[in-house]
Amino acid sequence: MLIGGIEAGGTKIVCAVGNSTGEIKAKQSIPTREPDETLAEIKNFYSDYELEALGVGSFGPIDLDKNSDTYGMILNTPKTAWKHYDLLGSLQRHFQIPVYIDTDVNVACLAEYRHGVGRDVSSCLYITVGTGIGAGLVQDGRIFQGRSHPEMGHVRIPQHSDDSFAGICPYHRNCLEGMASGSAIEKRYGKKGNLLGNDVNVWEIEAHYLAHAIVSYTLILSPERVILGGGVMKQDSLFPLVRQKVSELMNDYVYMGDMSEFITAPELDDEQGVKGAIALTIGM
Amino acid sequence: MLIGGIEAGGTKIVCAVGNSTGEIKAKQSIPTREPDETLAEIKNFYSDYELEALGVGSFGPIDLDKNSDTYGMILNTPKTAWKHYDLLGSLQRHFQIPVYIDTDVNVACLAEYRHGVGRDVSSCLYITVGTGIGAGLVQDGRIFQGRSHPEMGHVRIPQHSDDSFAGICPYHRNCLEGMASGSAIEKRYGKKGNLLGNDVNVWEIEAHYLAHAIVSYTLILSPERVILGGGVMKQDSLFPLVRQKVSELMNDYVYMGDMSEFITAPELDDEQGVKGAIALTIGM
Repeated sequence: MLIGGIEAGGTKIVCAVGNSTGEIKAKQSIPTREPDETLAEIKNFYSDYELEALGVGSFGPIDLDKNSDTYGMILNTPKTAWKHYDLLGSLQRHFQIPVYIDTDVNVACLAEYRHGVGRDVSSCLYITVGTGIGAGLVQDGRIFQGRSHPEMGHVRIPQHSDDSFAGICPYHRNCLEGMASGSAIEKRYGKKGNLLGNDVNVWEIEAHYLAHAIVSYTLILSPERVILGGGVMKQDSLFPLVRQKVSELMNDYVYMGDMSEFITAPELDDEQGVKGAIALTIGM
Repeated sequence: MLIGGIEAGGTKIVCAVGNSTGEIKAKQSIPTREPDETLAEIKNFYSDYELEALGVGSFGPIDLDKNSDTYGMILNTPKTAWKHYDLLGSLQRHFQIPVYIDTDVNVACLAEYRHGVGRDVSSCLYITVGTGIGAGLVQDGRIFQGRSHPEMGHVRIPQHSDDSFAGICPYHRNCLEGMASGSAIEKRYGKKGNLLGNDVNVWEIEAHYLAHAIVSYTLILSPERVILGGGVMKQDSLFPLVRQKVSELMNDYVYMGDMSEFITAPELDDEQGVKGAIALTIGM
């Protein structure tokens, strides 16, 4: 049984064909252009395969309220051609098979839970620290969703005492994303994080913000594992700093087990998005 | 069909008999003494009724991990006679019927969801602001639980610029409970909150901390309604202040609807605990 999995990002869209065990049989990356042009390329890729179902992990914001008239549509996005585009509907109309959609970060979390570093736990939180910050929770096999999908990247955290940066979130100024995203690092220091080397102060401040957020997430969601992905986490020195600060802040108040297993890097690399999209179609 | 519901608090235990519609037919309050003595009184109250099931909302911490050897036991508590007491096991052995247990705040949340101010929504968060601060989430009829029950009262929040209070949480000093619980208010001002009248600064600072926490809870859990209960919330001026600050902090980033419906007082008063305990036994 073949299943399609699409990772729809702002700059590229990865189309894949795989199966329920997480095996990927074919994959192609196409640039994200205008919707109609892009959809034609997606259809073209899949024309060689007979799919049973299709899953999509998409950039957002997307409407994920199944009772809404705009379910599965891209909402407000700076990519104007995609604004209000009915991504789910277009795919359903063309393929005439079950199509499932969720946010890129929720799908990444599901991929790691099913096939990656979360495969041995019953709940995991996936946090992506890149241009922006987002997070998703999978618990007992299901993606957590309330009235809408979580917007965890925007939690408020206490300012670091050595940091006078005002924050760049257009909505909240100094929320987590406004203080600790890749864009915030670049704005604060005038260059990208990967060009800042091992400057202790930079990563000490970054770890302070991430640790405060992880402590909140842990107290509120009680996940068994916290996976930190995204470009900013390529800075290896961050992991030990974040673990140490989370331990200090939590002060043994809740059980987190071995910290190097509790807070960890993802495992699936390039195939995380498409594997998660395929996983969306199974047992949801 | 008769169902028993027990609200087990640190100073009193309320035993009730009711049914699945939320109707309470009999109720008795007994003081919380040593476990054996208290259990004898509980058994005595229920000896007149033939129960189908029994639910308990208990003070904590309790072990709620069903795979644990100590499931249903009271864990560390300052009430030394109850430390490591097997509350669930004792009740199961005596009554020989299905017995369900959860934390007092989770049970309060379930009561409001089923029979109170949350009856028209699909998810609600209940926050109790009393001597301590705790919170529980019910979503689609089920109490949310991760690896363990949430400990949301201990999230970190940014310090109010006019507040130099260091906080009283023995684990985290200036977490939400350390800054905004009834005990924190009493320590900061030298008298209990209900004796502080309408002093604008007092409630402005209190609302600052509660609003920051509610914003985090909302971004992470996306509940449809937030119910604020507990002794501190008897101060009527707090509700409008908290609503205003949550609106300001969120800055239209996520949809919360009418703020007076989004953040609201509980409805069930004295019978919240026993109604929630009875609700625990139904459809869980």
